[in-house]
Amino acid sequence: MQHLLSVDDINEKFILDLWERASDQKDNFSSSLKNKILTNLFYEPSTRTSSSFYSAMVRQGGSVIPINNVKFSSAIKGESLEDTIITMGTMSDCIVLRHPEIGSVSRAAKVSSVPVINAGDGKGEHPTQTLLDGFTIFYNNKEKIDNLRITMVGDLKNGRTVKSLVKLLSRYSGNHFNFVSPPDLRLPKDLLPKNSFQTEKIEEVISDTDVLYVTRVQSERGSNHQYSLSLDQLNLLPRKSIVMHPLPRVNEIPRAFDNDPRAKYFDQMLYGLWCRMVLLENVMS
Amino acid sequence: MQHLLSVDDINEKFILDLWERASDQKDNFSSSLKNKILTNLFYEPSTRTSSSFYSAMVRQGGSVIPINNVKFSSAIKGESLEDTIITMGTMSDCIVLRHPEIGSVSRAAKVSSVPVINAGDGKGEHPTQTLLDGFTIFYNNKEKIDNLRITMVGDLKNGRTVKSLVKLLSRYSGNHFNFVSPPDLRLPKDLLPKNSFQTEKIEEVISDTDVLYVTRVQSERGSNHQYSLSLDQLNLLPRKSIVMHPLPRVNEIPRAFDNDPRAKYFDQMLYGLWCRMVLLENVMS
Amino acid sequence: MQHLLSVDDINEKFILDLWERASDQKDNFSSSLKNKILTNLFYEPSTRTSSSFYSAMVRQGGSVIPINNVKFSSAIKGESLEDTIITMGTMSDCIVLRHPEIGSVSRAAKVSSVPVINAGDGKGEHPTQTLLDGFTIFYNNKEKIDNLRITMVGDLKNGRTVKSLVKLLSRYSGNHFNFVSPPDLRLPKDLLPKNSFQTEKIEEVISDTDVLYVTRVQSERGSNHQYSLSLDQLNLLPRKSIVMHPLPRVNEIPRAFDNDPRAKYFDQMLYGLWCRMVLLENVMS
Repeated sequence: MQHLLSVDDINEKFILDLWERASDQKDNFSSSLKNKILTNLFYEPSTRTSSSFYSAMVRQGGSVIPINNVKFSSAIKGESLEDTIITMGTMSDCIVLRHPEIGSVSRAAKVSSVPVINAGDGKGEHPTQTLLDGFTIFYNNKEKIDNLRITMVGDLKNGRTVKSLVKLLSRYSGNHFNFVSPPDLRLPKDLLPKNSFQTEKIEEVISDTDVLYVTRVQSERGSNHQYSLSLDQLNLLPRKSIVMHPLPRVNEIPRAFDNDPRAKYFDQMLYGLWCRMVLLENVMS
Repeated sequence: MQHLLSVDDINEKFILDLWERASDQKDNFSSSLKNKILTNLFYEPSTRTSSSFYSAMVRQGGSVIPINNVKFSSAIKGESLEDTIITMGTMSDCIVLRHPEIGSVSRAAKVSSVPVINAGDGKGEHPTQTLLDGFTIFYNNKEKIDNLRITMVGDLKNGRTVKSLVKLLSRYSGNHFNFVSPPDLRLPKDLLPKNSFQTEKIEEVISDTDVLYVTRVQSERGSNHQYSLSLDQLNLLPRKSIVMHPLPRVNEIPRAFDNDPRAKYFDQMLYGLWCRMVLLENVMS
Repeated sequence: MQHLLSVDDINEKFILDLWERASDQKDNFSSSLKNKILTNLFYEPSTRTSSSFYSAMVRQGGSVIPINNVKFSSAIKGESLEDTIITMGTMSDCIVLRHPEIGSVSRAAKVSSVPVINAGDGKGEHPTQTLLDGFTIFYNNKEKIDNLRITMVGDLKNGRTVKSLVKLLSRYSGNHFNFVSPPDLRLPKDLLPKNSFQTEKIEEVISDTDVLYVTRVQSERGSNHQYSLSLDQLNLLPRKSIVMHPLPRVNEIPRAFDNDPRAKYFDQMLYGLWCRMVLLENVMS
């Protein structure tokens, strides 16, 4: 049994193997998870993530117990997360857990009799998002993920996806980072990689970018800036670059760019499905 | 690929074919939709409709991602309907969409990479309801749907099911309509077919009726009349007539009538299941 | 067809047969309910119970329509429970019903065309909980359930699980009961079995106990006592005794006791899954 709590826990070999197998999942259906049951245990709603795991499971012949409203349920009666995890472990073969509190997933893993996959623990991690982000680059860059010029735009202070992806990309040699944000939404200093450049003006770096990673400003986590890239700005990107966004998008990228071959933010969802298919098979069979 | 947004979009041949195949679905199970995934994307709850699509899908070997609380989910973060549709299209093979805004389903269809089926867009349409209503008549009338005397009772001004069914039945020759309602809940004038008669008193028409279609007064859409038919009134119906209701019923039809052979309002749900089985197979295989 | 509304309705032979077959369900998967559909119709949320039925169904190849938020749905429009039951009976082969009103399940069974299983009707019954409680004793006591010393602790006045289990255990000869509670939370007098002893002090009886059944104080039903057993108290239990709890636990049993071999409260959930597997197969095939 293997939990997935953080990308820090998994090594390059595991990741490379997962990505290589994910590349083969297109239109793939199997019955490798027949008779397996996944619990989608979401203490916060996240349609996108829970649906992706749901689809990844049934595409391999498995079933899903969808629990999307925990706060209205047993939790009312004061049950601890630990007891809920032990209980669901008696009925299913894996638990995908989304919980608003940082560290909750580690607490869950400590008592669980089945693998626990972190689907986001508040300001903590969301490792399958990081894996699919990395895979997006890998898949669109001839299965390489080094020596890239990566530009990250938006709220770099509060978004967990940016922080995790920076950590992942820093493992590979030759990657250079540009961070574009207003001063009060900068990436925390201790997370700044060596090869990085900070600015408020995207024009300074966009034409020199292989991967543009755009995030929304997380208004529900306390910021109120808004970053909207224009078509003109996006067209400064090199022809072979790619544009990513963890979604949901608000106004950061204009819809007129959606059909541009560089736009990969919806493909990311498809890639996420492939990565989760491989991951679920890994932990359950 | 074929969307189903409105009954106006489909011709008599399509409908006749669907109804003929629906007639054969009784106790039918198949695996024709094995490895197919449906997203039930309901921005408004509708247990009846979502359950019917759910059952129709699994009876053919498929799976369903049930999303019944969209408003509590990604939508909170401000995602557009279009982006949600594109996202769910990466994970599933068809989207059944219920949304409170008229026109929302057309917007969805414009960007969707998979077929979209309208399961109700506010005051707009609910075409599978209309198809099952029509099928109820077809199936109980020796596979004919012309030269009938149809009496519609209740809130004819606000109910979308009545309006759509009138349009459908008007396509077939010889159908005559009686509309029974208080003056302020009459069918809008531009929707009145040629062969129609309006009254406030059901006794004037009930004994001359082949199909009695009863609707509830939609209090949540602003009316406060109540129509309750008595057993005595219902017993004025000819022996071979049928009584329909789109459900949910409040007090419009007494429960003592439920076991009368003319009562078809619960059979309608079964017929709806059959129609949706055929429709899902149509769009996905 | 056979409903399960109350443990009173089923005889010892039925129960013994169910328990014997439940003992064989460990890691059992079958396709005996292939092409069968269960409706989980929960008017009150109960993650534990609905998930257990969900898992029991899919482990036998069946599917589940999960309806966990009825109050937000059709019910808003004023539909009666009876009409909802008839409707869901057209789409599925069995209905598991949880409803806050006592007697609601009998009303449902009266009109249902498919088997109805009571998953809790307010202060009424929750027969599958009682069956799994009994099975826990049976399974851990060499398939016997008589001549036992049973100690029940907590809110004995309001908890339906205790009342039902006392009735069940009283059917078998030689069982002796100790009831431990504050005076205002005692078991109602008319339910007291002959061989019973009441006290406020668990020390008087705990060392003379084969089965310790602990319940939480149901604060949402109006009491505000709290019963917390200490490790020292629990260690007065004989070595071969078992400790049960219907869950969710609040503070009644310390987590440090969870790994004690006498602790069976999480195993109960697994046993519940087995019992429900057999029950669902009973009523649907």
